[in-house]
Amino acid sequence: MACEVQDVLRNTDAVCFDVDSTVIQEEGIDELAKFCNKGSEVINLTVRAMTGNMTFQESLKLRLDIIQPSLTQVKEFLKIRPPTLTPGIKKLVTLLHNRRIPVFLISGGFKCIIAPIANQLQIPLENIYANRLKFYFTGEFAGFDENAPTSKSGGKGVVIDHLKKTYNFKNLVLIGDGATDLEACPPANAFIGYGGNVIRPAVQAKAKWFVTDFNEIVEVLNQ
Amino acid sequence: MACEVQDVLRNTDAVCFDVDSTVIQEEGIDELAKFCNKGSEVINLTVRAMTGNMTFQESLKLRLDIIQPSLTQVKEFLKIRPPTLTPGIKKLVTLLHNRRIPVFLISGGFKCIIAPIANQLQIPLENIYANRLKFYFTGEFAGFDENAPTSKSGGKGVVIDHLKKTYNFKNLVLIGDGATDLEACPPANAFIGYGGNVIRPAVQAKAKWFVTDFNEIVEVLNQ
Ligand SMILES: [Mg+2]
Ligand SMILES: [Mg+2]
Repeated sequence: MACEVQDVLRNTDAVCFDVDSTVIQEEGIDELAKFCNKGSEVINLTVRAMTGNMTFQESLKLRLDIIQPSLTQVKEFLKIRPPTLTPGIKKLVTLLHNRRIPVFLISGGFKCIIAPIANQLQIPLENIYANRLKFYFTGEFAGFDENAPTSKSGGKGVVIDHLKKTYNFKNLVLIGDGATDLEACPPANAFIGYGGNVIRPAVQAKAKWFVTDFNEIVEVLNQ
Repeated sequence: MACEVQDVLRNTDAVCFDVDSTVIQEEGIDELAKFCNKGSEVINLTVRAMTGNMTFQESLKLRLDIIQPSLTQVKEFLKIRPPTLTPGIKKLVTLLHNRRIPVFLISGGFKCIIAPIANQLQIPLENIYANRLKFYFTGEFAGFDENAPTSKSGGKGVVIDHLKKTYNFKNLVLIGDGATDLEACPPANAFIGYGGNVIRPAVQAKAKWFVTDFNEIVEVLNQ
């Protein structure tokens, strides 16, 4: 089973990464919540969201309504608690770029938090598909872009469909830790479960290939 | 007829002012459009909006979608082309404040453009009821607060109703140049048409008291 995925990987024409707990070690929204002293409130809500039947957008809205992050808070957060790259990700992305394979970041998190990460990995900012926070003139929290596909349940698949149609990718590989990543294959041509930061049992059970170290992927690309 | 209005004015417990072409000499959104090089496009649309049957919110949305003002542009606009107070307004507002009569600004324009005006007139920022622009983290235009009553047709009346209920005002006077001001009386207890910047024939015809100089109002208050 892993072999099928590895075959697609060796012929890949685009690689999409999830961000939270994949490219970075943290869950961006949880860290932002903690920074804004709303950590436990948001965690309680996340648990409720998982047991109830809330859509992703409803749960995002509720969590943001609790955090209400101001522009100043987000800027301070990025300065004081910048997200940390997962070990091995830089090497993997650099290898892909050296082979002229485009890399995309697809996330239910926020573009403003992901942008510095993309810069570190030399991924163009246009290759980020994520949610966008809004602020009033004075910097108060003003909501998020509710039209972004990544703000909706099933949004990662919508983005991948769009990428395949736009660029005519035939062997798009998706790498991520979560259920929303697994669900986006198809339309992704292959999915690699990543468990180096946190292992989701359902993803580990269903992924045809599951790795806990990005070097396993580098090795296959180098075979 | 003017006497009735003047009687309410002498006993007033709150005065609400329209902003564009009343407290300031310009129409804020038109000036912002010109500053962003979209002046003629927005004027064309304003004409279409007046002849068609567009709601206020639809026309606001269309105009902003043309202007797409970034945070940087709005900041530059306020620095380079700050709105100019109408002659006599400072004296009138100061007189009202000296008598401990609260002053409110109710506008279909934008709070970020009105705030510096309120500061000049020593009107607390909480007394501004207006629309609010939204921006993304990077400063790009991200829409406006579509829930603000001032973004909707009939919104000025909604704000005045709210003020009367909240503060128990019995003799609320509204001063403005436009049809949307005239329409907000009632619930306003009296309306003074103001034609010192621009005369709207329909307002001049229907207002029980129409002035072209704020000193006329000051004189009645001093009688
Ligand atoms: Mg994740
Ligand atoms: Mg006006």
